[in-house]
Amino acid sequence: MIRVLCLSGPNLQLLGTREPGIYGTETLEQIHERLRAEGAALGAEVECAQSNHEGVLCDRIGAAPGVYNGLLLNGAALTHTSLALYDALRAVALPCVEVHLSNPEAREPYRRASLIAPACVGKVSGFGGESYLLALRGLMGHLRKT
Amino acid sequence: MIRVLCLSGPNLQLLGTREPGIYGTETLEQIHERLRAEGAALGAEVECAQSNHEGVLCDRIGAAPGVYNGLLLNGAALTHTSLALYDALRAVALPCVEVHLSNPEAREPYRRASLIAPACVGKVSGFGGESYLLALRGLMGHLRKT
Amino acid sequence: MIRVLCLSGPNLQLLGTREPGIYGTETLEQIHERLRAEGAALGAEVECAQSNHEGVLCDRIGAAPGVYNGLLLNGAALTHTSLALYDALRAVALPCVEVHLSNPEAREPYRRASLIAPACVGKVSGFGGESYLLALRGLMGHLRKT
Amino acid sequence: MIRVLCLSGPNLQLLGTREPGIYGTETLEQIHERLRAEGAALGAEVECAQSNHEGVLCDRIGAAPGVYNGLLLNGAALTHTSLALYDALRAVALPCVEVHLSNPEAREPYRRASLIAPACVGKVSGFGGESYLLALRGLMGHLRKT
Amino acid sequence: MIRVLCLSGPNLQLLGTREPGIYGTETLEQIHERLRAEGAALGAEVECAQSNHEGVLCDRIGAAPGVYNGLLLNGAALTHTSLALYDALRAVALPCVEVHLSNPEAREPYRRASLIAPACVGKVSGFGGESYLLALRGLMGHLRKT
Amino acid sequence: MIRVLCLSGPNLQLLGTREPGIYGTETLEQIHERLRAEGAALGAEVECAQSNHEGVLCDRIGAAPGVYNGLLLNGAALTHTSLALYDALRAVALPCVEVHLSNPEAREPYRRASLIAPACVGKVSGFGGESYLLALRGLMGHLRKT
Amino acid sequence: MIRVLCLSGPNLQLLGTREPGIYGTETLEQIHERLRAEGAALGAEVECAQSNHEGVLCDRIGAAPGVYNGLLLNGAALTHTSLALYDALRAVALPCVEVHLSNPEAREPYRRASLIAPACVGKVSGFGGESYLLALRGLMGHLRKT
Amino acid sequence: MIRVLCLSGPNLQLLGTREPGIYGTETLEQIHERLRAEGAALGAEVECAQSNHEGVLCDRIGAAPGVYNGLLLNGAALTHTSLALYDALRAVALPCVEVHLSNPEAREPYRRASLIAPACVGKVSGFGGESYLLALRGLMGHLRKT
Amino acid sequence: MIRVLCLSGPNLQLLGTREPGIYGTETLEQIHERLRAEGAALGAEVECAQSNHEGVLCDRIGAAPGVYNGLLLNGAALTHTSLALYDALRAVALPCVEVHLSNPEAREPYRRASLIAPACVGKVSGFGGESYLLALRGLMGHLRKT
Amino acid sequence: MIRVLCLSGPNLQLLGTREPGIYGTETLEQIHERLRAEGAALGAEVECAQSNHEGVLCDRIGAAPGVYNGLLLNGAALTHTSLALYDALRAVALPCVEVHLSNPEAREPYRRASLIAPACVGKVSGFGGESYLLALRGLMGHLRKT
Amino acid sequence: MIRVLCLSGPNLQLLGTREPGIYGTETLEQIHERLRAEGAALGAEVECAQSNHEGVLCDRIGAAPGVYNGLLLNGAALTHTSLALYDALRAVALPCVEVHLSNPEAREPYRRASLIAPACVGKVSGFGGESYLLALRGLMGHLRKT
Amino acid sequence: MIRVLCLSGPNLQLLGTREPGIYGTETLEQIHERLRAEGAALGAEVECAQSNHEGVLCDRIGAAPGVYNGLLLNGAALTHTSLALYDALRAVALPCVEVHLSNPEAREPYRRASLIAPACVGKVSGFGGESYLLALRGLMGHLRKT
Repeated sequence: MIRVLCLSGPNLQLLGTREPGIYGTETLEQIHERLRAEGAALGAEVECAQSNHEGVLCDRIGAAPGVYNGLLLNGAALTHTSLALYDALRAVALPCVEVHLSNPEAREPYRRASLIAPACVGKVSGFGGESYLLALRGLMGHLRKT
Repeated sequence: MIRVLCLSGPNLQLLGTREPGIYGTETLEQIHERLRAEGAALGAEVECAQSNHEGVLCDRIGAAPGVYNGLLLNGAALTHTSLALYDALRAVALPCVEVHLSNPEAREPYRRASLIAPACVGKVSGFGGESYLLALRGLMGHLRKT
Repeated sequence: MIRVLCLSGPNLQLLGTREPGIYGTETLEQIHERLRAEGAALGAEVECAQSNHEGVLCDRIGAAPGVYNGLLLNGAALTHTSLALYDALRAVALPCVEVHLSNPEAREPYRRASLIAPACVGKVSGFGGESYLLALRGLMGHLRKT
Repeated sequence: MIRVLCLSGPNLQLLGTREPGIYGTETLEQIHERLRAEGAALGAEVECAQSNHEGVLCDRIGAAPGVYNGLLLNGAALTHTSLALYDALRAVALPCVEVHLSNPEAREPYRRASLIAPACVGKVSGFGGESYLLALRGLMGHLRKT
Repeated sequence: MIRVLCLSGPNLQLLGTREPGIYGTETLEQIHERLRAEGAALGAEVECAQSNHEGVLCDRIGAAPGVYNGLLLNGAALTHTSLALYDALRAVALPCVEVHLSNPEAREPYRRASLIAPACVGKVSGFGGESYLLALRGLMGHLRKT
Repeated sequence: MIRVLCLSGPNLQLLGTREPGIYGTETLEQIHERLRAEGAALGAEVECAQSNHEGVLCDRIGAAPGVYNGLLLNGAALTHTSLALYDALRAVALPCVEVHLSNPEAREPYRRASLIAPACVGKVSGFGGESYLLALRGLMGHLRKT
Repeated sequence: MIRVLCLSGPNLQLLGTREPGIYGTETLEQIHERLRAEGAALGAEVECAQSNHEGVLCDRIGAAPGVYNGLLLNGAALTHTSLALYDALRAVALPCVEVHLSNPEAREPYRRASLIAPACVGKVSGFGGESYLLALRGLMGHLRKT
Repeated sequence: MIRVLCLSGPNLQLLGTREPGIYGTETLEQIHERLRAEGAALGAEVECAQSNHEGVLCDRIGAAPGVYNGLLLNGAALTHTSLALYDALRAVALPCVEVHLSNPEAREPYRRASLIAPACVGKVSGFGGESYLLALRGLMGHLRKT
Repeated sequence: MIRVLCLSGPNLQLLGTREPGIYGTETLEQIHERLRAEGAALGAEVECAQSNHEGVLCDRIGAAPGVYNGLLLNGAALTHTSLALYDALRAVALPCVEVHLSNPEAREPYRRASLIAPACVGKVSGFGGESYLLALRGLMGHLRKT
Repeated sequence: MIRVLCLSGPNLQLLGTREPGIYGTETLEQIHERLRAEGAALGAEVECAQSNHEGVLCDRIGAAPGVYNGLLLNGAALTHTSLALYDALRAVALPCVEVHLSNPEAREPYRRASLIAPACVGKVSGFGGESYLLALRGLMGHLRKT
Repeated sequence: MIRVLCLSGPNLQLLGTREPGIYGTETLEQIHERLRAEGAALGAEVECAQSNHEGVLCDRIGAAPGVYNGLLLNGAALTHTSLALYDALRAVALPCVEVHLSNPEAREPYRRASLIAPACVGKVSGFGGESYLLALRGLMGHLRKT
Repeated sequence: MIRVLCLSGPNLQLLGTREPGIYGTETLEQIHERLRAEGAALGAEVECAQSNHEGVLCDRIGAAPGVYNGLLLNGAALTHTSLALYDALRAVALPCVEVHLSNPEAREPYRRASLIAPACVGKVSGFGGESYLLALRGLMGHLRKT
């Protein structure tokens, strides 16, 4: 059984309950449920967490080796500002897929550059909640090849 | 009764007790008291908090809708580095006034750019503790117009 | 009796009569009246002027010492391009508060940087005509402390 | 009858009498005459003015609504430095065509960027005095379509 | 039946036959076959093409409306240099998913910026040939939602 | 009889049939017809072509000397990325007028800089299909003077 | 007895147990022990802590005056992104020595700039765990001189 | 008899009466007197003027040919922002010497670049009022050589 | 027998027949002949081609392995804009020598940077048609060493 | 016996005899004596030299292999401008420790970047003459480990 | 008697004997003679030297205190690249006037910035050999005032 | 008989005796011998020198006119930092060919820009010691044409 840790960063706890006209009515918890179900179907146990704290995300990534086989990470705003997340990913050397609900490169210029991308095997962005599921599928394929 | 949340960021807990020659002897708690009194006079209940943690500030902003009508935010150093605070303000869509004790544009170049300004209705800076009171007054006017 | 000079820069003469949907229907003259009334209430005599000419604004600032105790300056577009206004403020060394109707940092990138900010004691922006009144209040507090 | 205001900026008063080897012997007044004649032929009354003062140009643009239907503007050096002219054009919201005798983009790098272009419907550059006439023709077409 | 056009840019015709140690031994034709099979399983007819010519890719995108419902585009090197591809995508306004075999953001700095990303609904990168299949799956979900 | 070659670049073949709400319903062929008629009236034979291929445009420019007296060039997206078009214009040394339907300087920042402008005698932009006609008129004037 | 606080930032808790081929097998706890022993030999009591949270590090620095005579700070990734740490050091005005295990200036470009260096008396980098001991020795010398 | 026009820009009217501790007690008028005396000694009639208006300075430069043989120009703040002054100098093609009381390159970074320098034969800066006299001497030498 | 492919990019077909005062009267075909003769003397068969199409150049490079032992490439304007040529050279991993008739670093700033240089073993520039012959000689030496 | 070469760059010969209020009264020769003594205590023979000539410093570094086991280098101003020193260090591949009396990162911006740091094993800065001694101690530890 | 040291940097030994059409036929030695004569007239003994070596210039400046009262420095190309000269001037704290034969700001962009200007009291440029004499005169005035 | 001076810059004296695995075992002296032999075969007397001192290289270039007909210059690290070498080449106006053993544009970014290239007729890089011989051949061809 493959074990996957899915982490989501700042403000994603607000998903679905705020601005449903833009982000839809699906909550992060509902995405997590779909992700766990998809994981079960693909032979993976997926654990999900969200935090507004860069430190908590680093704690979780640092504790992942030996427990999880791979990571899904939606760094949200920290994607563009946190070198600490990048270092955490480099340090644990677990395969990680970068996830985004929207397409950050189609937004403000300061969302164009991802600090964590160079520490990730791949990226899926722009498909809303589906981005998480496609990323899981991509991670599973990657884990099975290596 | 209008309810306002006033948040202050990193190192502002040190106000008044350190370097009084520069920043004066007024503590953050004394500013908070003056702010609550000014709020009462203007018909607002003001709740005040300080944290050195970006994550705590995001938690507080994310939980504000439905409880508060508007925000005062002195992001301190995070003003210039935290995209997460900007996203939090955008997500909750409450009117927020940016506050600074000093005039950051008269200081080091990296304090010239405010990442959170584009998510705020206005800014008051340079008047020491008075900046908070003027910002509250500006926020109240804004809330009454809209 | 404290005497205050309030200067407004290019195109602000158009306020209220153009694009009322965006800038409201209050004219600059009406703001000036409210400002004079507020000044009277706070113990200040406020003189107001507007010019599209950088040179006229410099002339007025240069002649201010000995006549006025402080300045309010809404440089409008010159805020971002006029080093001469900055030098004028530095030369006369009177306390000046920078004023903006809108929040320039939420607009085009070239409105992010204020050339005159480093010569000002503080800034109030984003509250429409109210910005002038809050700035006056902040200036009065500053003058009384020093 | 359509009314058009044609404004020319700094140093264009020197046209024709200085460096005829480069700029030709046609004076600005002769261009103005040809422009008025062309206007008459196309059904427009064209008023022409030149000033070395950014403030005067802003005064004229600010007073244009209700008097003129459109503008021709050769900002000369101010094209590259005057945010105030840009704001004036935005504020009055009259259609304006940017005019240049030479092709600024083929000259020094700091002449590549036009601050006023984003507030104009179009641009004609590089045809000497003819640029004014083509710009008038383009403006007339634009006014007739809208 | 949904119809999808999959386009691949410069040098991808070399896939599988060159540097198999790095890029694997799978050829572009084999990826195309897997993509057509996946499309069939998901209810889509997928047509695939590759060209080293920016012009050919624009020709194909320009002719797509009315024939295809969506696009997959691996622009390869043109991702970072071709504004024409961006304009083509904007002009036809078909949903397009950006695809990359590797993770360009983990490579040279000039591969960090994608000119075409702002015209795409999403992106999948880093999963080798699997990137195409995940992108198709993401596109199908997007088409079914809209 | 003066002979003029009018070249249009990538994606302009889509004009009129796509997004008529924005670009109008006039097709490129209709503009070409109007241009040929205007040419006839002004004493010029105008040949028109469009291509999505930078190479084809260079081929046409390279073959122009001895056949044509001048060029009209709407480089579209290549305006901002093709040094090869610039070199082609420099090499053949025929007078060329840069044409744009819209005003690129009022759009995205990367459309502000024209690589081909320094090789052109002038520019007409922002008048829709009329830009071509004004450019032809400007070119004719230029050819008659030299 | 001199009292020194030694703080280490994000991901340093992983030292020694991860990638021993690169960073060696010495854990942060073992470095802390050596540091306490070296402190004892030099007449200093050294307290050590590590956190992935910028907020915790600011809390500790803010509480240091009156308890500690000086600081050792290995900010890790926060060295390059945290203005809050810089402000904390400035606010408490205790002498601080910047420490790095590796030589950040020999690594990626974004590790070249240290935001906290201007608030430190000196820096020791590149000697692995020995960097901490040399930094302590340098700090002791500094404290004895002042 | 050689005739020289000496122009001084914004805020220099304040010289000597403001901040005498920094700029000395010599007024601009006293410098002008010394300059006229020095001119008389060297065989030149020197006319002096000051203005805060870029437009007035352009007017004076534009009217100089045929009246004056050369120019002294202390552009003050306009040195760094006025392309119009540069164009005026280029247009009249009279030899001009750039003058500064202080050494702008030893001050703020935005005072490092002089826009007007490339249109001047030389520069004298840093000698207070003496800069004007040395500049006159340099200009006289230049005029006698050419 | 060593086989070498020599490719020349946009506008080089015009060599010798245009602007002979600058580029000389030697045509590209004459250079090709001299190159083939030099190749024969050095023991190499040299095939030469020119195209204005980036795509054609990529096609030729992509098809080179197994047929040619090395490449000469004068990318002309594409040297500075085509990442696709760089990728093509990287993909086929044949030794390539960059050739230029003139010295691009002595020309416009945008000709200073070569995108293809990092994929080439060496460069010869500035010797007119002789550059091709020296490059061939250098390539032959390189091929014989490896 | 380990042999160490300590090199100091431009203007350090002035140490101690100039501006003692800032740099202290210790001369470079006194630092050299302390360094030789410390070396003797640690089992190293330390040879010291100073030069204002980049070429002399390169000569000394180039001649070091076979004679010295390691280097201490205080490049002074050349730290920020000399690529030749960097190349010299790379070429001889001896371990080198970068030394600075002050903390250059706390000074002018152009002192932030060290060109030689990437060729050094570590750095010690900010401890005055003590920096040399700590650097020697760090170098000795490094030499004993490898 | 005031003693002045005049230093000239790289390639100025070639003055007068090379390219007399551009730089005139006056040699550096002839300028030195005129300078010594002017010095004598003004009450100063002027010693002159030239070197192509940055190190020699630093040696001379470092040895100047106690021997000379002030410096004239034409750094030539080193003006724009030598931080060591800047440091030398700062270290000896003698008044220095920067001299240039031509007007570097009217030349290539990389000659716009002077690294040594911030360590000089003033600058004279653009008057050929006369620049040295004017600079001496300015230095004498400065020395007499202080 | 044509006379050629070949100059090599910093650290090239180490060639062949250091890191032979990378740079080969050929010493600079052996390259010089081959170069003199090649020169003899081509009808040129070649004198060779190496120095780590920018000043020595300027001395040699400055003394070259009248003695040598052309120059070969491998500036090594000074290629990227020495404006003085550029000025020396410009001043003597002898044809110079830039030489590099490796391909600097394929190395670190700061080796991409050559300050001396604009003063050279051409460049040969990337062929090891052969670069010198090809450069000599290119220089001879150039000298014979002019």
